[in-house]
Amino acid sequence: MRHRMEEYIKSLQLLIIKEIESLDGKKFEIDRWEREQGGEGISCILQDGNVFEKAGVNISIVYGNLPEAAVKQMKSRNKEIDPSKGPHPFFAAGISIVMHPHNPYAPTIHLNYRYFEINNKDDKDGTSKLWWFGGGSDLTPSYLFEDDAIHFHKTLKDACDKHDATYYPEFKKWCDKYFYLQHRGEARGVGGIFFDDMDRKPAEEIFALIKQCGDAFLPSYVPIIKKRMNMKFGEEEKHWQQLRRGRYVEFNLIWDRGTKFGLQTPGARIESIFMSLPLTARWEYMHVPEKNSREEKLIDVLKNPRDWV
Amino acid sequence: MRHRMEEYIKSLQLLIIKEIESLDGKKFEIDRWEREQGGEGISCILQDGNVFEKAGVNISIVYGNLPEAAVKQMKSRNKEIDPSKGPHPFFAAGISIVMHPHNPYAPTIHLNYRYFEINNKDDKDGTSKLWWFGGGSDLTPSYLFEDDAIHFHKTLKDACDKHDATYYPEFKKWCDKYFYLQHRGEARGVGGIFFDDMDRKPAEEIFALIKQCGDAFLPSYVPIIKKRMNMKFGEEEKHWQQLRRGRYVEFNLIWDRGTKFGLQTPGARIESIFMSLPLTARWEYMHVPEKNSREEKLIDVLKNPRDWV
Repeated sequence: MRHRMEEYIKSLQLLIIKEIESLDGKKFEIDRWEREQGGEGISCILQDGNVFEKAGVNISIVYGNLPEAAVKQMKSRNKEIDPSKGPHPFFAAGISIVMHPHNPYAPTIHLNYRYFEINNKDDKDGTSKLWWFGGGSDLTPSYLFEDDAIHFHKTLKDACDKHDATYYPEFKKWCDKYFYLQHRGEARGVGGIFFDDMDRKPAEEIFALIKQCGDAFLPSYVPIIKKRMNMKFGEEEKHWQQLRRGRYVEFNLIWDRGTKFGLQTPGARIESIFMSLPLTARWEYMHVPEKNSREEKLIDVLKNPRDWV
Repeated sequence: MRHRMEEYIKSLQLLIIKEIESLDGKKFEIDRWEREQGGEGISCILQDGNVFEKAGVNISIVYGNLPEAAVKQMKSRNKEIDPSKGPHPFFAAGISIVMHPHNPYAPTIHLNYRYFEINNKDDKDGTSKLWWFGGGSDLTPSYLFEDDAIHFHKTLKDACDKHDATYYPEFKKWCDKYFYLQHRGEARGVGGIFFDDMDRKPAEEIFALIKQCGDAFLPSYVPIIKKRMNMKFGEEEKHWQQLRRGRYVEFNLIWDRGTKFGLQTPGARIESIFMSLPLTARWEYMHVPEKNSREEKLIDVLKNPRDWV
């Protein structure tokens, strides 16, 4: 599975970069890097493009020993890994995408899929290999277009439904719960799908789901960005977008387990982890949208996540 | 002590606001708030002023029960509080200041002093009252002026020396260690002083130190800001300042225990906690200052903290 996941994310990265370059007109900057402690990656960044303020498509294949702090960040509901019994040999291969468009009417998108293996030491000092897949994709608009949210969710639902009809409803809820700014009482955006610890079926079947969801990235996003990228906007919309970008930063730095895991992994490439941050962001004291404004309508839907399909 | 600390921070807040208003020409917006679970505060914010992009001077007096997550954030070296034995009745009174000037040559300043009491349940189900003071002040320039760093440190050293000659060297090191972005390998700025869990002398004596350090705020900062606020600057300097503001956001959201503690406290006032964030910030992929540039000189001193007095 290690090799096949590696090959898949590399081919997906190429495909997405080609398509986004043709949309933006500017080329990605491509950085190949190696991790001293084991592993490598390819970071592709398009900064200050025609359509995108900042877009990153990264893959990484890393392995080595996980320190206690990283195990703690990674631990989630289902995995019984004892952080104190480390170091734990691990392998991780993943693709991460974040795209922040210039136009305030065009939403930010995020995607991440990853395969993880870890050697766990049990009480009898034996070891067992744990493996799982995780990931998802979510959409973060500054202004709500219901059609966009519906199209995005429908594309992801179709991908999930090809594998198991119970997936989409479960992953949709999981996404609303995960991409949530507790301190604001707001979802990050209009959601999408998210799952972790996915090992409930044979690896082969879950890998097929991962590929389906990865392949759904372009069809889920490109039609939306094409519709929004040339819409006229003014100072006011740009200002609101910048405040929303501030919220994006808050989520990524305070709540995102992936970011925290990255920061705790020795030899992690900070510049690749932080490609998810917007080019610019803004924080104003006590900014409150006007009653019945489009800005307030967005907040409403972030406070009360909807079912889109 | 509760009342006297409360009175001191209120009078210091008034004094500082008056002085900063006369410097900036714009008035602070003053918000009095109450915390449902117990307590109150006064948040004073000056946004988009003539000298300051964003300046906040907040005091808060809060009490009630601390939940487990907040106790965990608060726990530091010296305090043996068992988070699972909560809820813990607590009282906290503090003043927090952050000022971000427009001019890229003028440094950002931060100050926080606080008094804390908590009822601790011991193994025999008895309770004991723990109390301590904590806080400090640090300076974060985008461009290094050695004279500014020396003036700032000297003012703080003089304040500390009036109480105990061992304080400044100890608190200076503590500050360098605390205001440190581990993931960047950089200090936040040129440091200052920081301490926590301060209960090693009678409360009366530590309170006298706190007052001395609080009173040192204006003399430590105003001469610097007066020197820098009208210096000519261009696009390039503003751009660098925005990248440094990004680092400030990273520290506050990822590493600052005070911010984390705030976010974990039920009924905390998010807008007051986040007044510390700059108005605007910027993240660029792989930004590296030119060799021997003024920007690189700043990074050098952040990677290798110096003794300033």
